[in-house]
Amino acid sequence: MLPLAPPAPTAFRQWPNVLEVSAATVNGRTMPIRKPVLDPPFHIVRASHVELNVRDLERSRAFYVDCLGLLVSDEAPDALYLRGVEERNHHSIVLRRSREADACALGFKLASEDDLDRAASWFARRNLPTAFPDIPYQGRTLRTADIFGMPLDLYVQMDQRDSMLQNYAEYRGARIQRIDHLNCFTPDVQASYDFYSEIGFRLTEYSETDGEDPQLWAVWLHRKGNVHDLAFTNGLGPRLHHVGLWTPGVLDIIHICDVMATSGYLANMERGPGRHGISNAFFLYLRDPDGHRIELFTSDYLTVDTDLEPIRWSLTDPQRQTLWGQPAPASWFEQGSGFSGVVQRQPALTAQPIVAR
Amino acid sequence: MLPLAPPAPTAFRQWPNVLEVSAATVNGRTMPIRKPVLDPPFHIVRASHVELNVRDLERSRAFYVDCLGLLVSDEAPDALYLRGVEERNHHSIVLRRSREADACALGFKLASEDDLDRAASWFARRNLPTAFPDIPYQGRTLRTADIFGMPLDLYVQMDQRDSMLQNYAEYRGARIQRIDHLNCFTPDVQASYDFYSEIGFRLTEYSETDGEDPQLWAVWLHRKGNVHDLAFTNGLGPRLHHVGLWTPGVLDIIHICDVMATSGYLANMERGPGRHGISNAFFLYLRDPDGHRIELFTSDYLTVDTDLEPIRWSLTDPQRQTLWGQPAPASWFEQGSGFSGVVQRQPALTAQPIVAR
Amino acid sequence: MLPLAPPAPTAFRQWPNVLEVSAATVNGRTMPIRKPVLDPPFHIVRASHVELNVRDLERSRAFYVDCLGLLVSDEAPDALYLRGVEERNHHSIVLRRSREADACALGFKLASEDDLDRAASWFARRNLPTAFPDIPYQGRTLRTADIFGMPLDLYVQMDQRDSMLQNYAEYRGARIQRIDHLNCFTPDVQASYDFYSEIGFRLTEYSETDGEDPQLWAVWLHRKGNVHDLAFTNGLGPRLHHVGLWTPGVLDIIHICDVMATSGYLANMERGPGRHGISNAFFLYLRDPDGHRIELFTSDYLTVDTDLEPIRWSLTDPQRQTLWGQPAPASWFEQGSGFSGVVQRQPALTAQPIVAR
Amino acid sequence: MLPLAPPAPTAFRQWPNVLEVSAATVNGRTMPIRKPVLDPPFHIVRASHVELNVRDLERSRAFYVDCLGLLVSDEAPDALYLRGVEERNHHSIVLRRSREADACALGFKLASEDDLDRAASWFARRNLPTAFPDIPYQGRTLRTADIFGMPLDLYVQMDQRDSMLQNYAEYRGARIQRIDHLNCFTPDVQASYDFYSEIGFRLTEYSETDGEDPQLWAVWLHRKGNVHDLAFTNGLGPRLHHVGLWTPGVLDIIHICDVMATSGYLANMERGPGRHGISNAFFLYLRDPDGHRIELFTSDYLTVDTDLEPIRWSLTDPQRQTLWGQPAPASWFEQGSGFSGVVQRQPALTAQPIVAR
Repeated sequence: MLPLAPPAPTAFRQWPNVLEVSAATVNGRTMPIRKPVLDPPFHIVRASHVELNVRDLERSRAFYVDCLGLLVSDEAPDALYLRGVEERNHHSIVLRRSREADACALGFKLASEDDLDRAASWFARRNLPTAFPDIPYQGRTLRTADIFGMPLDLYVQMDQRDSMLQNYAEYRGARIQRIDHLNCFTPDVQASYDFYSEIGFRLTEYSETDGEDPQLWAVWLHRKGNVHDLAFTNGLGPRLHHVGLWTPGVLDIIHICDVMATSGYLANMERGPGRHGISNAFFLYLRDPDGHRIELFTSDYLTVDTDLEPIRWSLTDPQRQTLWGQPAPASWFEQGSGFSGVVQRQPALTAQPIVAR
Repeated sequence: MLPLAPPAPTAFRQWPNVLEVSAATVNGRTMPIRKPVLDPPFHIVRASHVELNVRDLERSRAFYVDCLGLLVSDEAPDALYLRGVEERNHHSIVLRRSREADACALGFKLASEDDLDRAASWFARRNLPTAFPDIPYQGRTLRTADIFGMPLDLYVQMDQRDSMLQNYAEYRGARIQRIDHLNCFTPDVQASYDFYSEIGFRLTEYSETDGEDPQLWAVWLHRKGNVHDLAFTNGLGPRLHHVGLWTPGVLDIIHICDVMATSGYLANMERGPGRHGISNAFFLYLRDPDGHRIELFTSDYLTVDTDLEPIRWSLTDPQRQTLWGQPAPASWFEQGSGFSGVVQRQPALTAQPIVAR
Repeated sequence: MLPLAPPAPTAFRQWPNVLEVSAATVNGRTMPIRKPVLDPPFHIVRASHVELNVRDLERSRAFYVDCLGLLVSDEAPDALYLRGVEERNHHSIVLRRSREADACALGFKLASEDDLDRAASWFARRNLPTAFPDIPYQGRTLRTADIFGMPLDLYVQMDQRDSMLQNYAEYRGARIQRIDHLNCFTPDVQASYDFYSEIGFRLTEYSETDGEDPQLWAVWLHRKGNVHDLAFTNGLGPRLHHVGLWTPGVLDIIHICDVMATSGYLANMERGPGRHGISNAFFLYLRDPDGHRIELFTSDYLTVDTDLEPIRWSLTDPQRQTLWGQPAPASWFEQGSGFSGVVQRQPALTAQPIVAR
Repeated sequence: MLPLAPPAPTAFRQWPNVLEVSAATVNGRTMPIRKPVLDPPFHIVRASHVELNVRDLERSRAFYVDCLGLLVSDEAPDALYLRGVEERNHHSIVLRRSREADACALGFKLASEDDLDRAASWFARRNLPTAFPDIPYQGRTLRTADIFGMPLDLYVQMDQRDSMLQNYAEYRGARIQRIDHLNCFTPDVQASYDFYSEIGFRLTEYSETDGEDPQLWAVWLHRKGNVHDLAFTNGLGPRLHHVGLWTPGVLDIIHICDVMATSGYLANMERGPGRHGISNAFFLYLRDPDGHRIELFTSDYLTVDTDLEPIRWSLTDPQRQTLWGQPAPASWFEQGSGFSGVVQRQPALTAQPIVAR
């Protein structure tokens, strides 16, 4: 674990003068919610994949493949490439054998190679890292990072595998269809929101503190047209909070609860099942054998309209987390996966959500 | 195939003078519906199992185990013993390798060994066959037959296996829970109804011809408290029409449709999925590789009340078969599994149900 | 509230010498589990209905009818008669306007008028109360009580209403089909189990304390062929713990969670949804506006076999209550509805189940 | 009914020289599938609404509101404005009282007012009609038509209503969430495909004739990121084949089958329920009281990737229409809603799909 850096949100807030560009009045408030950037500097299509370091690849395979039912696209002595039943992209979760159980990078698919070049220029102009390492099964890939150092892999092309969507006899476990989103801790939700808004991520829902000077506590941002591709929550960061995987329906999530509870994975069920207030999705949170958090998620709503107004939730509304009222456990608020080699910072905002005692 | 015997329902109708015993007025009609016999000569608990002859045991195993997901309790070179996930009884379907693809016997579980002795006496008094062959994995078993020669195995004890109801990781295919019922063709529905009523089967629903002298076309009879353990439909008989297997819910049936349609079993899907008018259950009819018919069935209703009035359906009501109106294919009305060595008779009643052209 | 009587389980244990009658070895233990009484002194068909006193009939109607979706069979100025969509019996829940919010009586349907006479004799011989009050919409009804004074209404006939099972357009709320069971606190689970076993209730599952001299903590007893008609849990009693209502499927329970959480009934959701270890059913516990507890319940299993072995659960097994591990809240263990005018006693057994802090 | 114009696909094929612009090799074939236009002349967000003429508004209200459960946003003496539970846009279906039961226009939402101006120029340059009529509850709306005269309403802003997504107590019928797509007959699928491709619609699946010179039979085109916003099938056209409405899950479709079959709408159920081969969605086709066709549709897949390869289906593959094999009825292939005042043409292509006899 790297030493924690002191809180430094103010510096980051000075980064782009984005508020001048597109400040907006939403729900009668002028700040801090912004208009969506409809013509971004480059086109991100969606959250595409994540690379996780795990300490015991066989143990992880038992969890992700034998229990949850993800498909194996390829395996190497030190890596396992996984995808859901509808996915033609080679991988949406990559597991790498490692001594440390942390996260490597978040992968986003871009619309074209031109977009990838524009992305490289855009990050370079902001003095953020740019490299084009060779990545197995992927085309040209820009490895960069956001303002807090969170590693991002941007690419256009990935090797294709057959969609198994209509190979129903191969469905197992939770019948996971595809990756849906990535959710991260950030030490400064406002700064992360500003940064990703600038490159075209659009806000669908957010929670903030009450009172005269409300502060953003969490934001849900999308590119692909549902509630999110990327979300940020206030906390020690950057860290990966969870990877969201889409299932066909609610009963697939109920079934995997029954499976996990009766096949040695009871302790891996962290929260749920339940209905989120935010996103309206049905959910279950799991912890993999290394503690990486997985959300099974289904049934949110369409967000493609350009005039879609973001939905505000008070941080103290117990139904924002779980419509049915059950508070999340403390671990859910506190624990996450660090990014390999990235310094973490404490958030400046210390408001307290509702936690199950 | 044995030569067909000529229609002879009249003779069979002379068998027991049962109508004197318990004739009843139901729905304003005096015939042919009877009051339930609440204190039968011996206590049958439920339909328990069926033994089917199949020509290729490996092909049948692929269908019943790999596709439908039944559990294997035991296998021998010439037999396969199957059960559903909640069943502790050793088997509910027995498949035997044979040159002919027909049915051997219908199994019913009795309440006690005393009931079994009373059953043997009862059948013997009526000059129906009684034998006590050794049956693997079963206790003392009375092999007898009904008035049309349909073979019945009555027993009390069977070897027990662990219920796998809470071994959810072992659920496969349609997640079949248990056997629910047996449905047969008879050349004389009235006579079969009279016979089985006498030994305690209770009527829940029936269809009959319209007009001044209505004739029973089909009856649904139960012992265990839902719509049926045993049903009879007018037709060349005795033949087994289908074995009904219970699934946890509607989506398990939808899923097995998707599985079968995409794994080489499309032609084995004969009818449905749909909602029955009769029984209100959700259903799917399949044909196994030898043509034996299986129904997946779920969500009927409770019938334990002794004053439950049977529900009448007109034979010409298209919703009795399928609430949503789709007619059944001709094969569904015409085809069934003969019983090994049993002469079949044509029915006297020739009314025509609604058939898909 | 009546004054509590002191614990007196020993006296009650002396009541019937039932253990001599049918003591049994189950799972290698000789006590306290008994063989089922298959030929009881009179035949109870099933748990049929419950009568609850409520303080505000309009408020209760909003809960049971407008929210949960029960059908109104009849209403009077001081009473509301409710049933589920498949029920032809006139009522399964009766709500009576009252100054006290307690329970009146538990209703059980018998097989015949002869059984009712035999029941009256049986209770009278044991010096338990017997009366035949006029009850609206019911035939001849024996009002009696068990050894702890818990009021029981035994009857055969009830006015019949149309089944609405195939009037799908009338389905509302949780689409409740029928009453399933009644669950009660008793000050002596062993004594209650002995008493109800004697009149034919059969044990399906039980939990008991660990150690050399295990004590019954809770029992699930059935007549109709699924896990229970009647259950008892150790606690201040007699009190009604909850009324169990059957829904067609899991998603009906998920939907009513969504409805209640967003229409002013969030605080009425006490526990769940979840999967029980015991019974394997999917469940949700609600509190009505007077605090009476309702369980929505679906998908248990068939228990008609006479050789069905009861399933033992250790009181300290967290999965017995909820397969997925979540403990029940303290209110669920502590609170219940007293019976009108009936003295309650503290249990002698003080073992502690796992409670959510 | 307007007189039919003779087939004239050749003329239409001369319209845009679009194949030069972006001809592509897909699945090893050079024609007639094209690369997606990722930078279209104006940005359409999604299929948004449809306006239908009906002859009896009360009868239509009973069907759409009382039975299917759509919400009423507004009603006028001659019009009814409907939306699904998640929709904030004022209407997705508008019903207008009329002497003729035909369709008025298909509505598409654009990304910005600039896009609307660019659209007007684009259509004007091609000598297609452009007008800006006042439309109630909508902002500036371009009324234009495609090359076959099919009326299109393009707009950006619509009055907003509260999303009822979390007002679960208001869910009724099929619990319809939102409009999903519009499906039309065209006399020349290739020409329609070419036209809509040019303005950014992207192909996800298609069916074509077999043989050396395959001809497009049907195309599924999207803007919003699932299988389609707009589809075309070969046939007398332009006509509206159906409006697709999204439901939360499969069981919502099963339930509305049960409702319709038992509340007087049996004859309005035209096809299904079933699983499409194309799109993999679960579906049910209905006919409203005027014969307009509605599809309830759920659970397709994500199509946002710019390198997504369209899926080809042979016209003679019975599983393209229904994965489970049931052919569609002849009415489904033949009948559709004409557009008010628009001349229809016979298609040049006369290949025959598989039809239920």
